[in-house]
Amino acid sequence: MKDVYKELKPPERILLGPGPSNVNPRVYKAMMTPVIGYLDSELLRIMDEVVEMLRKVFKTKNSITFPLSGTGTAGMETALCNVIEPEDEVLVCIKGYFGARIKDIVERLGGKPIIIEVPWGEIIPPEKVEKMLKEKKIKLVAIVHAETSTGVLQPLKEISNIVKKTDALLLVDTVASLGGTSIETDELGIDIVYSATQKCLSGPPGLAPITFSKKAIEIIRKRKNNISSFYLDINLLEKYWFGEKRKYHHTISMSLIYALHEALQIVLEEGLEKRFERHRRNAEALRSGLKAMGLKLIAKEGYQAPMITAVAIPDGVSDKQIRARLLKEYGIEIGGGLGEFSGKIWRIGLMGESSTQKNVLLVISALEKLLSEAGYKVKPGTGVSAVSAYYQS
Amino acid sequence: MKDVYKELKPPERILLGPGPSNVNPRVYKAMMTPVIGYLDSELLRIMDEVVEMLRKVFKTKNSITFPLSGTGTAGMETALCNVIEPEDEVLVCIKGYFGARIKDIVERLGGKPIIIEVPWGEIIPPEKVEKMLKEKKIKLVAIVHAETSTGVLQPLKEISNIVKKTDALLLVDTVASLGGTSIETDELGIDIVYSATQKCLSGPPGLAPITFSKKAIEIIRKRKNNISSFYLDINLLEKYWFGEKRKYHHTISMSLIYALHEALQIVLEEGLEKRFERHRRNAEALRSGLKAMGLKLIAKEGYQAPMITAVAIPDGVSDKQIRARLLKEYGIEIGGGLGEFSGKIWRIGLMGESSTQKNVLLVISALEKLLSEAGYKVKPGTGVSAVSAYYQS
Repeated sequence: MKDVYKELKPPERILLGPGPSNVNPRVYKAMMTPVIGYLDSELLRIMDEVVEMLRKVFKTKNSITFPLSGTGTAGMETALCNVIEPEDEVLVCIKGYFGARIKDIVERLGGKPIIIEVPWGEIIPPEKVEKMLKEKKIKLVAIVHAETSTGVLQPLKEISNIVKKTDALLLVDTVASLGGTSIETDELGIDIVYSATQKCLSGPPGLAPITFSKKAIEIIRKRKNNISSFYLDINLLEKYWFGEKRKYHHTISMSLIYALHEALQIVLEEGLEKRFERHRRNAEALRSGLKAMGLKLIAKEGYQAPMITAVAIPDGVSDKQIRARLLKEYGIEIGGGLGEFSGKIWRIGLMGESSTQKNVLLVISALEKLLSEAGYKVKPGTGVSAVSAYYQS
Repeated sequence: MKDVYKELKPPERILLGPGPSNVNPRVYKAMMTPVIGYLDSELLRIMDEVVEMLRKVFKTKNSITFPLSGTGTAGMETALCNVIEPEDEVLVCIKGYFGARIKDIVERLGGKPIIIEVPWGEIIPPEKVEKMLKEKKIKLVAIVHAETSTGVLQPLKEISNIVKKTDALLLVDTVASLGGTSIETDELGIDIVYSATQKCLSGPPGLAPITFSKKAIEIIRKRKNNISSFYLDINLLEKYWFGEKRKYHHTISMSLIYALHEALQIVLEEGLEKRFERHRRNAEALRSGLKAMGLKLIAKEGYQAPMITAVAIPDGVSDKQIRARLLKEYGIEIGGGLGEFSGKIWRIGLMGESSTQKNVLLVISALEKLLSEAGYKVKPGTGVSAVSAYYQS
């Protein structure tokens, strides 16, 4: 075993997978800000600013809005473990890999998942949610906004109107979507929303922005059982993040907070609506290129997420070989399929800093060349022409 | 609400509290290394190196040794939630704030904490552990190595010999001690050890190094109940961190992994034993200065931790005023008391990069001046002379 390790020099990557996305140099620079104490008044001021910016991005006035010290999955677990008690019935909407993960966590917490499942690539029909809410005593309805495993963007308005008429809470996973499309937390009356920093916010991974409505907090306050996690207990986290007198709970990662502060600043400088429009346009350009090459998209027309596109790998083409060549020859990372889609699809992300016209043109022209060399029949220039035409229109 | 926030410029701080400690510029620089995909072969190689270095620092050959995506408290929770099942009896040794936190987590998991408690400032007597292990059917014995709330360093050899003769597992919290004093994981046969990155390892906070013995892993494999946490489930984490085929579980924070890689590299360059000696000497110098000024140490002689010193605030001296002046006039952060020691003690940390002769001289001379101005009777130069004499001896 050696005692001296080489300096880290990972190759340059264009991150067009399901996240992380490319990080703006300003964000790396922010991480050079010195670490200070977890109760230093200057840190508390910076935390307050992060909270203020997160409220803007979540479009909420919720008091309890902050970045958790963990990744998106920690956000998912926090959203669930604070609310669910043993025997609680939870309506879990499964349309891909991450819906299934919610089910797993509900079961670990002793909750009873009631499942609405649709084939991967489809959306959850609101009427199914309505029916279940009538039949069962549901405490929480959980749904993933942008399923990165399928590239589907779930419309939320109808479902939120349905849930709002009941006592149930509505939980939306926006891990992939926050910062890339509008999340109308307050307007739709969503009770719990969580996300991650490394997708459309383009920060480094490690934090999970989360927000709880007053209704959700009231239900947490009325729990009969202890929350199984100390680390993720909102009652304790609240006392550190908010209020006049801050109470130690754990040592947050100042470096990640600094990074998120800068990443959010960049989001707000661009402007939310302009940012969403950029994501929409680049994803549409990408899809027009893929379709022109004869490739089949997984998500149904009209429900395609503006930050992640899942596309079927043509018959006879090797998943691994194409992804390896994309990485080696172009420095481009795209994602493979998860779960039942493993080996069958590619997932091309255009998130945050990675969502650019340049990247769309590059990945389409690279794919066109590599697919053609792998024996897939495509007329040279087809994909790139379609993309160029889209941008000129 | 404003839309443009100022660049972060926190004041320069000398971090002499209970953590975080000062971070080497090399570690900040490592965080500028670009974020890459969570399954990128280059990232997997870097992760392997971090694992290799952590095994050296933990002094273990344990296969399952890696940094968790959370802070020290997440390490504590992971250590407990993977092993403990409802109704399990857990012997929790409480000699300060963090022992009490272990009890809290055991209860949340449905375990039955059996408590050995001693007054804050004392160590846990091994014979008490021996007695309890004979009387009860204990699954796990949990003890904090360096209690940052009291400055006590718990000797582990006798207790580990006692536990080893039983079927119980031994869990040691080394959040404050790892990297500052020797942790003989394999030699003592400790089954679960966890730590944090921001204390004697001098990285930014956000990761929790952890290691599990074969015996611990076997007990986890034989569980009857699901592990309540998906995020902290060792069975799933293992499949991402180890083995030929890595399976996605969550997106780790590459930036924090890069930082830890560099921090561990710095630890190994200095050499473990040299580093421990540095911590020992500087803490001894600090204590000689404090004692010379007539201040009373909390931890009993012989059991004083080499990285954190708790000292009683003299009667009539304002905790807050002195700490505020230290921060404002000297840029020095020291810690206040936790729990029952709140307002009654100060905690002076000399951890990792912060453990230097220069810092000892500075904090002693600053305290001497401020205490004297606050009406505490101390002959000018007393503390600093004692410290200088120590270093010259």
